[in-house]
Amino acid sequence: MSTHVFERQRKIHFSECDAAGIVFYPQYFVLFNDLIEQWIDELLPDGYHGVLGTRRVGMPTVRLEVDFKAISKMGDQVSLSLDVERLGNKSLTLGWTCTGADGVVRMAARQTIVTTSLDTHESIPIPEDLRAGIERAANECAVAVDQ
Amino acid sequence: MSTHVFERQRKIHFSECDAAGIVFYPQYFVLFNDLIEQWIDELLPDGYHGVLGTRRVGMPTVRLEVDFKAISKMGDQVSLSLDVERLGNKSLTLGWTCTGADGVVRMAARQTIVTTSLDTHESIPIPEDLRAGIERAANECAVAVDQ
Amino acid sequence: MSTHVFERQRKIHFSECDAAGIVFYPQYFVLFNDLIEQWIDELLPDGYHGVLGTRRVGMPTVRLEVDFKAISKMGDQVSLSLDVERLGNKSLTLGWTCTGADGVVRMAARQTIVTTSLDTHESIPIPEDLRAGIERAANECAVAVDQ
Amino acid sequence: MSTHVFERQRKIHFSECDAAGIVFYPQYFVLFNDLIEQWIDELLPDGYHGVLGTRRVGMPTVRLEVDFKAISKMGDQVSLSLDVERLGNKSLTLGWTCTGADGVVRMAARQTIVTTSLDTHESIPIPEDLRAGIERAANECAVAVDQ
Repeated sequence: MSTHVFERQRKIHFSECDAAGIVFYPQYFVLFNDLIEQWIDELLPDGYHGVLGTRRVGMPTVRLEVDFKAISKMGDQVSLSLDVERLGNKSLTLGWTCTGADGVVRMAARQTIVTTSLDTHESIPIPEDLRAGIERAANECAVAVDQ
Repeated sequence: MSTHVFERQRKIHFSECDAAGIVFYPQYFVLFNDLIEQWIDELLPDGYHGVLGTRRVGMPTVRLEVDFKAISKMGDQVSLSLDVERLGNKSLTLGWTCTGADGVVRMAARQTIVTTSLDTHESIPIPEDLRAGIERAANECAVAVDQ
Repeated sequence: MSTHVFERQRKIHFSECDAAGIVFYPQYFVLFNDLIEQWIDELLPDGYHGVLGTRRVGMPTVRLEVDFKAISKMGDQVSLSLDVERLGNKSLTLGWTCTGADGVVRMAARQTIVTTSLDTHESIPIPEDLRAGIERAANECAVAVDQ
Repeated sequence: MSTHVFERQRKIHFSECDAAGIVFYPQYFVLFNDLIEQWIDELLPDGYHGVLGTRRVGMPTVRLEVDFKAISKMGDQVSLSLDVERLGNKSLTLGWTCTGADGVVRMAARQTIVTTSLDTHESIPIPEDLRAGIERAANECAVAVDQ
C-alpha cells in the first residue's frame, strides 16, 4: 500500500528527453502537472478540467523548491508521488517525489499552489469539495503510514 | 475488439491545451509519438528506447498529412489509434485517428516514417524483429476486422 | 530582399532537440506557430494576441501537409519563411519553408487555417483588417519576386 | 545599461500559454534554458551546442528555487535576465528574473547548475574558457552596477 497521497508508475518517454537522452528538466513540471490533474480527477466528480474550465478556479504555482538528485533516462520506469505538506485556507503545499525502479529518488520538490479566480486572478478560498477531498486523501494516507 | 493495430484511451490534459481551452495542435504530434512508443514497447522486448538508444536506429518522420476535423477540449476522453497502411523495406506508413467518446473523428493523419542510422542519419532497412512485430500486429488486426 | 511574405532567421535551440540531437519534429509546429504570431503582430496593431484574446477569433489549423527533407541539428542556423498560397473568405493557406544556412530545404509544408469564433468554435469570415494586412503583405512580396 | 549579466526582451507567445491565457509555468523553464543558451553562445565561439554536443559536457540543473509573483499573459512584453550568484569549481548558481514592462517582477528564481561528462554523467570542473567567459561577464556587470 502506498504511503503517499497519490502515486502513479510512469515510463519516461522519448518525447520528454533532451539531446543527452535524459529527461529535459522542464518536462518534470509537465509530468507533475498531469499527475496533480489525475489526482484531482479522482477527488472530484467534475475533475481538474471542471475546476479550471467550468468553475473558472485557477490553481497557479506560487513557489517551487526542487532538487534534482539523479538523472532519469529514456525508457526508465519511475514512480511519481504526491504528499500533502500543508493545507491552508487559500493555498496548498505539495511534496513531489520521482523515484526510480531501484528506489533511488531522482527528483524531489515542494510546490505551493494558491486558488484564484480566473476572471480576476485574485486569490480565493480553496473550494469546499476540493478541500474535503484533499483532507480525506491525506487522512487515508496517514492511516496507511501508521499501519 | 479493436479493429486498429493499436489503440489507447486518453484524457486530454490541461497541459496539452492552449488559451482557447482546446488541444494546441502541435501536442497531437507528441501524443501520437508517445502512442507509437507504447506500441513498439509491446512489439519488442527492448522497446522503443532500445531501438533509438542502444541500437541507435532512428525513426524520423518524412511525410505527414493531417486533417483536423473537430476540436478536442480539456478533459475530453479520446481514443488514439494506429493502422499500418504500408510496410516497405526502409519505410512505414501509419494511419492515425483521434476519435471522441461520441465516435466523431477529431483528427486523422497519415505518417511516413523511415528507419535511419543515428550515426550517419542515412536510411537503413527496418530491423528484422521490428518488421516481424509490425507484420504480426497487422495480421492480427486484419483477422479481427474480418470477424 | 526576401521573396517570401515573412521570413525570420532562427537558431535551433537545445530545448527543441530530441535524444538524437536533432529537432523533435512536433517542435517545428511550435516554431511556425510562433512565426505566424510574429507575422500577424506586424500586420495588426493589436497583434495575434489581440485577435485570439480580446477579439476571441480563433485561427485553428484544419489541414497540414508536411515534408521533412533533411535534419536540423542543435545549433543550426535556419531560415523560417511563410508564403500565402490562397486567401479565401473564411480560410487561408500558407506555405512554410525551413531552410538551412547552406540553402538546403529542411522542411516544407502547406497549412490551411480557418477563422472561428472562440465562443461557438464555428467558422467566421477572416476579420477585414487581417485580410487587408495579408493582401498587402502578399502584394509587396509579389512585387519583390517580380523585380 | 543593464545591471544584469545578461538580459533579453521577449514577447509571451500564444504557444507558451495555458487555458487561462497565462504562461503555463513549465514554459518559464524553457524560456530560461533558451536564455542561458543565448548567453553561452555569446561567451564561447562554439556556443552552447558546442559544449553539449561536440565537447559532451552536460549542464544539468541540480537545484531550483522559484517564486511566481505575478502572472504573465499572452502578448505581454517581458524582460528575462540572468545574474551570477556564485561560481564554484564544478557548479554555478544563477539568479533569474522575469520582469514586466511595468517593472513588476513576475518570476524570480535561483538555479544551481553542475557541469558533467555526458558519457559518465559524473560531475567535472567547469571548462576553463566557460569559467573565464562567465567571470568576464560578471565583472563587466559589477562595473556597470557600480557606475
